[in-house]
Amino acid sequence: MSATSARSRRAKALDEPASPWAARRSVGRALKRDAVILAAARAFRERGYHNTSLDDLAASLKVTKPTLYLYVPGKEAILFECFLAGIAPILATLDDCEKAGGPARERLFAFIRGYAAAIVGDFGWCMLRAEDQHLGAGLSRRIKLLKAGIDKRMRALIEAGVGDGSIRACDTKMTAFALAGALNWMGHWYREDARLKPQEIADRFIDVFNRGLRGSD
Amino acid sequence: MSATSARSRRAKALDEPASPWAARRSVGRALKRDAVILAAARAFRERGYHNTSLDDLAASLKVTKPTLYLYVPGKEAILFECFLAGIAPILATLDDCEKAGGPARERLFAFIRGYAAAIVGDFGWCMLRAEDQHLGAGLSRRIKLLKAGIDKRMRALIEAGVGDGSIRACDTKMTAFALAGALNWMGHWYREDARLKPQEIADRFIDVFNRGLRGSD
Repeated sequence: MSATSARSRRAKALDEPASPWAARRSVGRALKRDAVILAAARAFRERGYHNTSLDDLAASLKVTKPTLYLYVPGKEAILFECFLAGIAPILATLDDCEKAGGPARERLFAFIRGYAAAIVGDFGWCMLRAEDQHLGAGLSRRIKLLKAGIDKRMRALIEAGVGDGSIRACDTKMTAFALAGALNWMGHWYREDARLKPQEIADRFIDVFNRGLRGSD
Repeated sequence: MSATSARSRRAKALDEPASPWAARRSVGRALKRDAVILAAARAFRERGYHNTSLDDLAASLKVTKPTLYLYVPGKEAILFECFLAGIAPILATLDDCEKAGGPARERLFAFIRGYAAAIVGDFGWCMLRAEDQHLGAGLSRRIKLLKAGIDKRMRALIEAGVGDGSIRACDTKMTAFALAGALNWMGHWYREDARLKPQEIADRFIDVFNRGLRGSD
């Protein structure tokens, strides 16, 4: 290999953009598809769904729009994939909390920690906001159903706590909404440079929801 | 007056649309402007800000787009007016709660009741979502500042509670975020046909935040 071509390769490596197309031709289809979903999730969060075009997305990945279409059928479908990527860790946490032993209040709090981590992740925004983007009726219905499923399982955890005595009698539906609201709001205000890490925020929330605010009076 | 013209006037009255232009020519400018803001707030909530054009809005009020421009300078300015209409009752509640006597915890709970009523009102959606619509830098900054002001005053109420002993020592910033999240989430899930009225929901939330969830174990 000539010194010139080694230099040229080194220069190219330094300049390598964060796109699996430019990076390595051998990268598999699934990885490339994941790269589209992740780039889209970041663009949607930053600029809004309606302000992000497939052209923007193709440009950010340094590919052409026809190339994008090899991996995804369109913008709505990408948002739905982002939504699925957003709820996946939440569903996994729910599985864990449902299977775990011990008082349901502790399992609810473990769920709060998992949810907080998910909501501030790359797909948190899409998980929260996909429903508000006025998608087609079919996708909207699937998103609503999947979210309702999470809500239902969260409420079941609270009910289990009332059942095993670890949670006092309360309006379980409104309690689930209050908890979900506090957690979802994190997706709105949380920034990566925040003073507290997601787990620390979750612990502050758990403290409030566990003991309440009532003082000594 | 002939019988024919009386009949024609009566028919017209029955058919009268919900637009102050069609209704009475003497209706003042401020009322007409308010009608634009209200119609816009409802359209934004229903169809989304980006999916609502000034043409749609003009059509819903049965006026032309040039007529709209007599009252408002453009869509962004309308959204900002909707935002202001949304925070007005919240600011009024804060004034009341700050002026009132008694333990700060009680005043915080009064604020929660006022906020819940505001968030489910016509302008609640715009109050919550204006910031996410990628408006110009000037408007975005004003919205952020006004919201930050509400957050600061809410936190001051919690701090006053810690000071007077009615609220136990807690992370006041995270507590304010948890409360705001629970309340703002109402704007997302609440529907007018809901089983509980906003005040009843606020009372359930207050119960959770006051006493916490911890059971007897």
